[in-house]
Amino acid sequence: MTFPWPATGTRIEDLPTPLPVIDEDRLAANITRAQAYIEQSGKTFRPHIKTHKIPAVARQQVDAGAKGINCQKVTEAEVFADAGFEDILITFNILGTSKLARLKTLHEKIRALKVTVDSEATLTGLAATFDAERPLSVLVECDTGGKRCGVQTPQAATTLAQSIDAQPGLHFAGILTYPAVGGAQEVENFIVETVKQLKAQGLDCPIRSNGGSPDFYSAHLVPSATEHRAGTYVYNDRSMVRAGHCKIGDIAMYILATVVSRPAENRAVLDCGSKALTSDLLGFSDFGTIEGFEAARIVSLSEEHAVVDLSDCKVDFPAIGSMVRVIPNHTCVVSNLFDRMVFHRNGIVTRVEDVAARGAVW
Amino acid sequence: MTFPWPATGTRIEDLPTPLPVIDEDRLAANITRAQAYIEQSGKTFRPHIKTHKIPAVARQQVDAGAKGINCQKVTEAEVFADAGFEDILITFNILGTSKLARLKTLHEKIRALKVTVDSEATLTGLAATFDAERPLSVLVECDTGGKRCGVQTPQAATTLAQSIDAQPGLHFAGILTYPAVGGAQEVENFIVETVKQLKAQGLDCPIRSNGGSPDFYSAHLVPSATEHRAGTYVYNDRSMVRAGHCKIGDIAMYILATVVSRPAENRAVLDCGSKALTSDLLGFSDFGTIEGFEAARIVSLSEEHAVVDLSDCKVDFPAIGSMVRVIPNHTCVVSNLFDRMVFHRNGIVTRVEDVAARGAVW
Repeated sequence: MTFPWPATGTRIEDLPTPLPVIDEDRLAANITRAQAYIEQSGKTFRPHIKTHKIPAVARQQVDAGAKGINCQKVTEAEVFADAGFEDILITFNILGTSKLARLKTLHEKIRALKVTVDSEATLTGLAATFDAERPLSVLVECDTGGKRCGVQTPQAATTLAQSIDAQPGLHFAGILTYPAVGGAQEVENFIVETVKQLKAQGLDCPIRSNGGSPDFYSAHLVPSATEHRAGTYVYNDRSMVRAGHCKIGDIAMYILATVVSRPAENRAVLDCGSKALTSDLLGFSDFGTIEGFEAARIVSLSEEHAVVDLSDCKVDFPAIGSMVRVIPNHTCVVSNLFDRMVFHRNGIVTRVEDVAARGAVW
Repeated sequence: MTFPWPATGTRIEDLPTPLPVIDEDRLAANITRAQAYIEQSGKTFRPHIKTHKIPAVARQQVDAGAKGINCQKVTEAEVFADAGFEDILITFNILGTSKLARLKTLHEKIRALKVTVDSEATLTGLAATFDAERPLSVLVECDTGGKRCGVQTPQAATTLAQSIDAQPGLHFAGILTYPAVGGAQEVENFIVETVKQLKAQGLDCPIRSNGGSPDFYSAHLVPSATEHRAGTYVYNDRSMVRAGHCKIGDIAMYILATVVSRPAENRAVLDCGSKALTSDLLGFSDFGTIEGFEAARIVSLSEEHAVVDLSDCKVDFPAIGSMVRVIPNHTCVVSNLFDRMVFHRNGIVTRVEDVAARGAVW
């Protein structure tokens, strides 16, 4: 069966809800502004496609000056390679026979594939898959305080880089980190020390890749980084406003929702549940902001219902059947819930794009 | 492009991760046990398809004796109507021209479509859409303490039932509630009083539909209910174990994941992030249980990473590249993240089903 995706020219007031929509002008402005900032910081920019998962949006980012793109999974990279992207960094430890085989096919297809490793175990799989005829570029992931993946010290990074360098099928291309919020100085220190130790071992470190949206406009505080990776800026969201990276008027994604119930004086129910907003709180105590009704709090979600507490809302909340616009806490995870994304300019639908890498889980 | 879904006969140890898998025997046993309990309670059973979104699984539920199915959206109901289901209750206020038009088409297609309302506003839309030639069955949703949708009092339920009864295109079919946990007595009181008030107005109340998984095995404590609706029991999850509704060995869904990093002594990272497990905590302080490593805590998720704290884990945690099995907090939301679902018996893939109603958001 075919779901009723809207035609170009439809007014967003006439769209079915719940549905995220993307403001074309804000999207374009976000791309321009972020690209300019990273360039002014003397770095190359590598947008993370996880926020949109749409080749056409990545094309806008590359056309604006981005050097390449950042994916997290081999299957995501395949989608973007099929769409013509040639410079793809996969920031994930690729393990297992089937994923390594697909990675090799991908490497034969595009010009500049790169991956990360943070262990000898991951390196061993890569080394057994690639050969000297067409070596794969590999970066060492470093934990500079983010406490996710990554080697723990510059010394460990150097040792792993030497192991990469010793493999005929692999090319040591540099280092990479996904830092803690507020960790710019730690990143800088880690990079400087690692570059020094690598140099002592006769190894260059051409790529020093820093990343992250929570600290996006602190990228210039890491002068030793050559590249920055980030995704959320392209649409922006409530967390980016809180971080001071944008204003409410820079948020390109809204979730259109309908008031479906007004069961009690201080309670309204919207049709955007966790299947539209997700349960990501990102430190907030509620699940999104309703534009124009900021004191109305989305206090709980079930899959298809958002319960709104109107206790502190002094303005009349819309009646049953009315459409409202919800700013999500976290835009990336919303993209992952919808098969297509609707774009508009001044409320008129401009295009409907497949969220092509949604479902690319491996 | 085609993602590498596995063939029947594949061993689950050879599947790419992250991936949820369903144990056929546990699934079948869960269906049998729940159906028997509801029948013993003297009620009809109406499984909620949101947990699986797969017609073949709903067919197993109906074959076991379920009277019909419960959907939440018109588009979900369309998927199941296309698959041959004739008795579908949509427990949602349907609003707006396009959804009402689709609802009418659906009503003309299947034998027993029913919807709920909790306001005159929603009723008005239905009344304008349906006519006396083929009236639509409508239930009044009642808030018995769950504080989501629903009229607040038996008197309000009766008034709304009278409004339904006054419409030539609508048929008052009964009342429905999604109760609070532990609210069996409140549900019973609400039903008894509403039935009494309806009778005083000359209205029968043939369907008294109670629901919910958190209190599933308390369904018999509401003797006045004629029907129970629930979804989670079909796969079960960590929340159902906590509620005492099943044992660990009754959980049919596991998420297969791979250890992708062991960056520090007390930290491991799995490849099942919020895109596989979701951020649903459901009152837990961590994001799932790792089978065999219950003291290892999944303390944070990003979209593709699960960070595991091993501080309290006294047994050796698996090495990089090893597969682990994660019990999700909430199974329904996991189904919504994958295009297909892999079923197995004793670790051998038996079938791969489209999650046909995933993406049916309207």
